[in-house]
Amino acid sequence: MPASEFDLIAAINERLPAPGERVRVPSGDDAAVVKGDPASVVSVDAIVDGVHFVLEGFGAEAVGRKALAAGLSDLAAMGADPGEAYVVVGAPAEMPDEQLLEIADGLAGVATRDRVSIAGGDLVSSPVLVVSVTAIGYEPDGASLIGRGGASPGDAVAVTGELGGAAAALSLLGIGEGNQDQIESAVPAELRESLLARQLDPRPRLREGRALAAAGASAMIDVSDGLGADAGHVARASGCRLEVDLDRVPIADGVTAIAGGDGAALELAASGGEDYELLVAIPPERLAEARETTAAAGSALTEIGYVTEGQGVALRLPGGGEIAPRGFDQRRGSRSGSVG
Amino acid sequence: MPASEFDLIAAINERLPAPGERVRVPSGDDAAVVKGDPASVVSVDAIVDGVHFVLEGFGAEAVGRKALAAGLSDLAAMGADPGEAYVVVGAPAEMPDEQLLEIADGLAGVATRDRVSIAGGDLVSSPVLVVSVTAIGYEPDGASLIGRGGASPGDAVAVTGELGGAAAALSLLGIGEGNQDQIESAVPAELRESLLARQLDPRPRLREGRALAAAGASAMIDVSDGLGADAGHVARASGCRLEVDLDRVPIADGVTAIAGGDGAALELAASGGEDYELLVAIPPERLAEARETTAAAGSALTEIGYVTEGQGVALRLPGGGEIAPRGFDQRRGSRSGSVG
Repeated sequence: MPASEFDLIAAINERLPAPGERVRVPSGDDAAVVKGDPASVVSVDAIVDGVHFVLEGFGAEAVGRKALAAGLSDLAAMGADPGEAYVVVGAPAEMPDEQLLEIADGLAGVATRDRVSIAGGDLVSSPVLVVSVTAIGYEPDGASLIGRGGASPGDAVAVTGELGGAAAALSLLGIGEGNQDQIESAVPAELRESLLARQLDPRPRLREGRALAAAGASAMIDVSDGLGADAGHVARASGCRLEVDLDRVPIADGVTAIAGGDGAALELAASGGEDYELLVAIPPERLAEARETTAAAGSALTEIGYVTEGQGVALRLPGGGEIAPRGFDQRRGSRSGSVG
Repeated sequence: MPASEFDLIAAINERLPAPGERVRVPSGDDAAVVKGDPASVVSVDAIVDGVHFVLEGFGAEAVGRKALAAGLSDLAAMGADPGEAYVVVGAPAEMPDEQLLEIADGLAGVATRDRVSIAGGDLVSSPVLVVSVTAIGYEPDGASLIGRGGASPGDAVAVTGELGGAAAALSLLGIGEGNQDQIESAVPAELRESLLARQLDPRPRLREGRALAAAGASAMIDVSDGLGADAGHVARASGCRLEVDLDRVPIADGVTAIAGGDGAALELAASGGEDYELLVAIPPERLAEARETTAAAGSALTEIGYVTEGQGVALRLPGGGEIAPRGFDQRRGSRSGSVG
């Protein structure tokens, strides 16, 4: 009996026929790459009420926004131009139509902002709300797509923006741990809003992804499962080891106050996930250019570690010691330490 | 408050931004068509335990087979070459991994038979089993894709294969109405098997779809919601009326015995759905050629009616009178008479 999501997925993949010659990069990366003119990049992702979001806390519009943004983030992580999205909504028959229209508003807001066509969909009855998004993007003219598997020893490891905000927002929403009154009073109202937006209205780093691809990134992934878990995906696909100094990881404002200390904030930033920032490996001599073009695209790029020979991930604490890389086990719907 | 699935979908579509110029045919047809070389055809479909199938009665492998076959049937209905499929499985954490591997076996069987690459997927936790398939096909070299909207007055209406089998199989599985012992003894064992296969192992008419497109079909759709409902989709998209003589509709062997009479069999064939045969409108002078090429592709093509000016669908009974076109309301998970 396979033990973890990753073992199970490996067992499933063994049963499937080998992909045909049209498929340039099959399942296992952020998205598949399929030949054509232009080459297309395809990602599928589903979010389920009570597992990936809580409808009551999020509101229906945020569910639509988040479902589409998460799909587009996979395209960003390949350096692709966004194209079309196809959305399946499974909704309980008793859910008010008004909520479904709010989900559509959320999808529409993100589609308009990020210039994506919602070109098709399916609406079905389901005992639980589930939103599945297929996001299709394209290889930009004259540029190359970046997978997870290209990191080599000597590369710098860097991350866009700031981490921990999406996880801290769960605490603000009363979905995480801790005393709700204490958490709310830990940060001023304005900061609460910006943190909540990290969870409820994530911004896929599409322009940053293209800038990093053009600047010579050797591997790229979006931080959806958590920094440690996603660094583990890059390490596994690239056949090398990622060393991350946690004190260099940029933490979003307010996360330390909500987490209740520096150590807890690092834990959130390392394991929280859903920040939808980009994690890259890049030759150190390209880092300065990448920092410049990523800033022009809208985000800071911060060096947080390097790639070495070996395997797995080290998340090093400032005072010595390490945090075990943890990630979200999609199959069990819970955090687990099986990744890395 | 929108009253039906179709009103709701219209309200949702109003909220979404207009598709970009890359989208040749947006949502509303069996699949979207997107420009490129080759042009791509994209369909999304989800099936949910207890709504579109019953895991206990179907078995996990049939769930995988059916989910992929239904997606490919949308490609068949456009006359497309099948390309890749992307599969999201949402499964309860307590579902044995063995059942998930059986779903994979079902997907693998159809992918191998119909020469489709399963190029990506997502496995998530969900309180109910849901399988969502994105099927991507391509416009064949030198051929045109056929939508729902091209029927004109004077066209013949024809259908591939035989109808009613998938609905009769539900009765055999104890999911439909009627006395189970009577139903089982109504048909010999061999016939039971072939009827069950119509529900548990549907065959997308991919070769027939390409043959019909090449033979000059003016509109095409797969019979998934039910003959009456799907004829209604063609009528609405084409701005004309479809007249169907039910006594010309080919009924699968055993359906009459299981339904308990000719009238009930016609009702199953007209409303049952899920046979995944193809319904076409075609100029009458092309019908003989279409019959020949469709037969070469593996299926009989039977003329069952014609297209006139007007709107809606007439499903005419042999003795006079009509059956009201009914279809499956995906939103409510039940049959409704709102379509047509």
